[in-house]
Amino acid sequence: MAAQRLDFIAPREVAWVEIEEPALQADEVRLSTLYSGISAGTQLTAYRGVNPFVQKQFNGESRLFEPREHSESSLYPVRGCWGYEEVGVVTELGSGVKGVKEGDVVYGTWGHKSAHTVSADFAHDHKLPEGVDPLAGIYSQMGAIALNAILDADIHIGETVAVFGQGVPGQLVAQLARLNGADVIAIDLDDYRLGFSQKLGAAHTINSRQTDDVSKRIKELTGGKGADVAIEISGAAGALHEAIRCLAYNGRVVTAGFYQGGAKDLYLGEEFHHNRISLIGSQISGINPQLTHRWDRLRMERTIMELARAGRLKLTDLVTHQVAFEQADAAYRMLDTNAEPVLQVVIKF
Amino acid sequence: MAAQRLDFIAPREVAWVEIEEPALQADEVRLSTLYSGISAGTQLTAYRGVNPFVQKQFNGESRLFEPREHSESSLYPVRGCWGYEEVGVVTELGSGVKGVKEGDVVYGTWGHKSAHTVSADFAHDHKLPEGVDPLAGIYSQMGAIALNAILDADIHIGETVAVFGQGVPGQLVAQLARLNGADVIAIDLDDYRLGFSQKLGAAHTINSRQTDDVSKRIKELTGGKGADVAIEISGAAGALHEAIRCLAYNGRVVTAGFYQGGAKDLYLGEEFHHNRISLIGSQISGINPQLTHRWDRLRMERTIMELARAGRLKLTDLVTHQVAFEQADAAYRMLDTNAEPVLQVVIKF
Amino acid sequence: MAAQRLDFIAPREVAWVEIEEPALQADEVRLSTLYSGISAGTQLTAYRGVNPFVQKQFNGESRLFEPREHSESSLYPVRGCWGYEEVGVVTELGSGVKGVKEGDVVYGTWGHKSAHTVSADFAHDHKLPEGVDPLAGIYSQMGAIALNAILDADIHIGETVAVFGQGVPGQLVAQLARLNGADVIAIDLDDYRLGFSQKLGAAHTINSRQTDDVSKRIKELTGGKGADVAIEISGAAGALHEAIRCLAYNGRVVTAGFYQGGAKDLYLGEEFHHNRISLIGSQISGINPQLTHRWDRLRMERTIMELARAGRLKLTDLVTHQVAFEQADAAYRMLDTNAEPVLQVVIKF
Amino acid sequence: MAAQRLDFIAPREVAWVEIEEPALQADEVRLSTLYSGISAGTQLTAYRGVNPFVQKQFNGESRLFEPREHSESSLYPVRGCWGYEEVGVVTELGSGVKGVKEGDVVYGTWGHKSAHTVSADFAHDHKLPEGVDPLAGIYSQMGAIALNAILDADIHIGETVAVFGQGVPGQLVAQLARLNGADVIAIDLDDYRLGFSQKLGAAHTINSRQTDDVSKRIKELTGGKGADVAIEISGAAGALHEAIRCLAYNGRVVTAGFYQGGAKDLYLGEEFHHNRISLIGSQISGINPQLTHRWDRLRMERTIMELARAGRLKLTDLVTHQVAFEQADAAYRMLDTNAEPVLQVVIKF
Repeated sequence: MAAQRLDFIAPREVAWVEIEEPALQADEVRLSTLYSGISAGTQLTAYRGVNPFVQKQFNGESRLFEPREHSESSLYPVRGCWGYEEVGVVTELGSGVKGVKEGDVVYGTWGHKSAHTVSADFAHDHKLPEGVDPLAGIYSQMGAIALNAILDADIHIGETVAVFGQGVPGQLVAQLARLNGADVIAIDLDDYRLGFSQKLGAAHTINSRQTDDVSKRIKELTGGKGADVAIEISGAAGALHEAIRCLAYNGRVVTAGFYQGGAKDLYLGEEFHHNRISLIGSQISGINPQLTHRWDRLRMERTIMELARAGRLKLTDLVTHQVAFEQADAAYRMLDTNAEPVLQVVIKF
Repeated sequence: MAAQRLDFIAPREVAWVEIEEPALQADEVRLSTLYSGISAGTQLTAYRGVNPFVQKQFNGESRLFEPREHSESSLYPVRGCWGYEEVGVVTELGSGVKGVKEGDVVYGTWGHKSAHTVSADFAHDHKLPEGVDPLAGIYSQMGAIALNAILDADIHIGETVAVFGQGVPGQLVAQLARLNGADVIAIDLDDYRLGFSQKLGAAHTINSRQTDDVSKRIKELTGGKGADVAIEISGAAGALHEAIRCLAYNGRVVTAGFYQGGAKDLYLGEEFHHNRISLIGSQISGINPQLTHRWDRLRMERTIMELARAGRLKLTDLVTHQVAFEQADAAYRMLDTNAEPVLQVVIKF
Repeated sequence: MAAQRLDFIAPREVAWVEIEEPALQADEVRLSTLYSGISAGTQLTAYRGVNPFVQKQFNGESRLFEPREHSESSLYPVRGCWGYEEVGVVTELGSGVKGVKEGDVVYGTWGHKSAHTVSADFAHDHKLPEGVDPLAGIYSQMGAIALNAILDADIHIGETVAVFGQGVPGQLVAQLARLNGADVIAIDLDDYRLGFSQKLGAAHTINSRQTDDVSKRIKELTGGKGADVAIEISGAAGALHEAIRCLAYNGRVVTAGFYQGGAKDLYLGEEFHHNRISLIGSQISGINPQLTHRWDRLRMERTIMELARAGRLKLTDLVTHQVAFEQADAAYRMLDTNAEPVLQVVIKF
Repeated sequence: MAAQRLDFIAPREVAWVEIEEPALQADEVRLSTLYSGISAGTQLTAYRGVNPFVQKQFNGESRLFEPREHSESSLYPVRGCWGYEEVGVVTELGSGVKGVKEGDVVYGTWGHKSAHTVSADFAHDHKLPEGVDPLAGIYSQMGAIALNAILDADIHIGETVAVFGQGVPGQLVAQLARLNGADVIAIDLDDYRLGFSQKLGAAHTINSRQTDDVSKRIKELTGGKGADVAIEISGAAGALHEAIRCLAYNGRVVTAGFYQGGAKDLYLGEEFHHNRISLIGSQISGINPQLTHRWDRLRMERTIMELARAGRLKLTDLVTHQVAFEQADAAYRMLDTNAEPVLQVVIKF
């Protein structure tokens, strides 16, 4: 079966490619993509060619980053543009499939392409609950990333959590922190984003561009103590420095952002050293080992979708732009140049 | 100033004693007690004479329990019956008092007596927030005990928490666990109590008398994994054994109950040994040291009252009986003999 | 190939059975057993018929203990007597084996039988280091159990660790605690065992039968603070109670013993409740999840053998009795009746 | 009583000042300084004027660093040159002093000055154990800093610990890590220092200037897994990056260095993000709260001196230069310009 896929073929260049989906096996189902979200963070780094993976490569065995021999040539083309926010509808069933039917909506990560093939088991496990808008299904992985940061934060009812970065991941983190019992202080340098934070339940918002000393402000809001926990998900070293500063003594920063380059705006000789702060590198593939007997990726994704179903987590509210698959290049240009206020862009098939 | 106090003078014997409150100092305020709750757990052990402190005494310096020379004689009279659920109204101000005024409602722990004297600082710190029913003020300490158990539980949004014991402390724990993001399974041997659990937000209730294998049932309710966390607050060793059994591998039991005697119903060679379970002794005077730079007793009490003010924590719903101070002895007899279904008895002054 | 195996065929009854070892595969090697140790703890419970597994059975899927239908009949015969302290010499190589040669000494767990067959990979991984007495090889599993308790204890240089139980497992734990930087206080009710403790490096020994208040004594030895960590490996609930009592505030007991029956000598309402003690159920198959990316069973076993090789861990010093395979029944009777002072009995083939 | 003190009066300028020690109180003792060590780390930053405290000041109440109004003028003079490695002998007793006598040797921190006055209680608590060379007494605080890093490292017998930075603090950390059961890999860019590391027990040394990929080398030395724990005490961001890289998955870096400026050589998007690394800011005034009921500053200092007494910790071996008080300025110049190989310079009174 023929399908369409969007690739990055060079920095700031996209292309539509016709591909052939493999023949359907007895235990597989075919999905027709409904929506595919653009992750403004990770994907843009590949679009721009500044991702660490462009200059270096991660050696999965030694778990070390190593110099990449021929840097650019080996990155491009980026097939499917590293898209990981997909949702589709079942259009065809393998001969032996049970427990899944045509019309079921399935979430997952398969890049920007118009059709996809998965095992029936996968489809069964990742079926969108009844009553959830299919658009919400794009957030299975991003929701899990946000939830993983929350698992690392050990939030207690009545605590104050400072969330740095209010793009889509930060919006999800902030909502989940609130559902986990916290009062949330949302920090960003963009009032447009902070408007969403406020609407979606943050107790306080702080525009870091318009505030002299963000941490001083946070200490004022917390009776002088500082935040109980900070979650840094903007990926900016300067924001990480502020996340460290704003904490109560012996506090923890969950660092869930994806930092580019050296951390020149991070001053470790100051509050980090004097206030006994700890940092934990929180990343989706690394669930806290203490929790691995109860939590796994699938439980995270299902928890996100179940919270959406119950109306407690607002997912579709985050989508500000929907564009047709054919106009995806314009969407990337717009994101790259910050041409207009934006939170989530979704490609519609 | 004369005041009335209720004492235990021997096992199962109460007496009303007239005492003299000291002269009011410049920086003190006088409270007239409004309500004083009876804690069915701790207080009844003293009423019945089976409290560990009756046979042994805690040496505060060595922190060891040691044999008590003359056991009963040194316990009784128990002044104020170990009451610790009080709330009163300010009736008189010392000459130098600022920041507190007549009519302010103040919560604290001063035993079953009609009047009490506190520093103005204490009154200021423990003022009941505007809009909270004074009756809710009896729960400052019990609420803090429950919240301390929650601080020890590290609950994450989407987790299932099993709460063993649905007397007043368990009801508070269950509500707080839910506010901390959990689905709560409430366990008790009494349907009357479980009715409250259900009404106040438990996702599931289990009557342990009517259920063959409570932990098997909990595993069914959690997709086979077991509860993420268990909180044991009944004080029964058999319930603790079940709290251990019901957990997912590597799980934690927060033991907040006050256990009497040897733990003969606790079988440590079974699930405890095989499933890598941990227990933590959670008690109000022992906040998790990792949290002591941000949490203290006062913050706990204020958090409880603030949650009550916001309508999120239901406190007065737990009060099933109000009795006049003069009829307090009948209330103790009723509790001692389980004469009627009861959750919280409050003495009204 | 014919081999001899020792079985429990009923409570307190052993039998020698001739078995047939399977034909040797290309990638396997044949071992001729040199020594097989008798674990006085676990094995004696099966010999006596009091093991929890006799009355109940562990359901590996639900991880719950459940009633056993036909208790005794389903336990016996206990093949190989649950022996798990074996060491043998390679006598025959499969046709494709590389990296292992005849005469290599291999440690493992295969019950009391005269010969055993393992994969060449296993033999390669579990080869005894050069220069180690083959007798030491019986301690691969017991050493790993002891080391796992040490991994759970997080001992810091200069700390005092109280080890309850000075049978073989306790002797290993005590030595490892010392190598991990601790001053060790060894507690047992038997002076014969405590003599070994003293000789093998304990800073202090306490005979709990001859001491009024063990924990008071431990507090005296630690400047009033109490032990930093306690490791309970006797399996007696009364010892666990003392392990809890002897600790500094907020201390941890690593419970590595195998407790039989209800814990009637454990008083949880006392120091456990008042001193914020935590317990962790430490068992060989349950490594602390935080460590599982670096520690596994094989690393534990190799660490034990490497410490023996370096002369830091004394293993063969623990062996007090060697008996011929044919006289094994007398050894069990002696252990069962405490007929003479004993630490480790080894069956010699 | 007149005494001599050394001050920094401007960047790279020292001066000798005559001061007056206060009259001796009944419960005090007078010390005549024997030795005062120069801490090449912290003190040199003040000597050079690059310490964070020069540009900013730490607000003890908000625990935030804030801009300093008049930077240099408010730092200088630095009285006693921030010296914190002192040891002296008791020369005079207040009239009511018991438990201390003339000739007792007392360690502590009082800056580079010839005499000092302390309470008899302090002198009693900080008396150097019999048999320890007084020169070793300079290491009470530095030893405690090193020990605090070890308390944060939770080292288990058989683990490999990588220590970055082999100046005096790193030498102490490396020795303590070994006493805590670890195999130590010592890393520095100076062979002179690494010579000490090797002599004092490191299992491996790595010169980071002469090694292509330090972490790759560490992975080779640890069977591919990586170090179990890393302790960074050089204060260089690049070394911190390497400390992160060299760890096994889910590992922890104890950061005990004092970092100057922005961390431009720290790449948080790489191994930190992908390998779930955590960092803890370890500083002497911040003992792990979990340990504060058993460990305090005094216990740390006594542990260091007791380990020295037992011959397990080598302290005086670290002293490479002793200079007369009058020649201290030359010593600072030598250190500032790296004029010759040096580990520890001590001022002799």
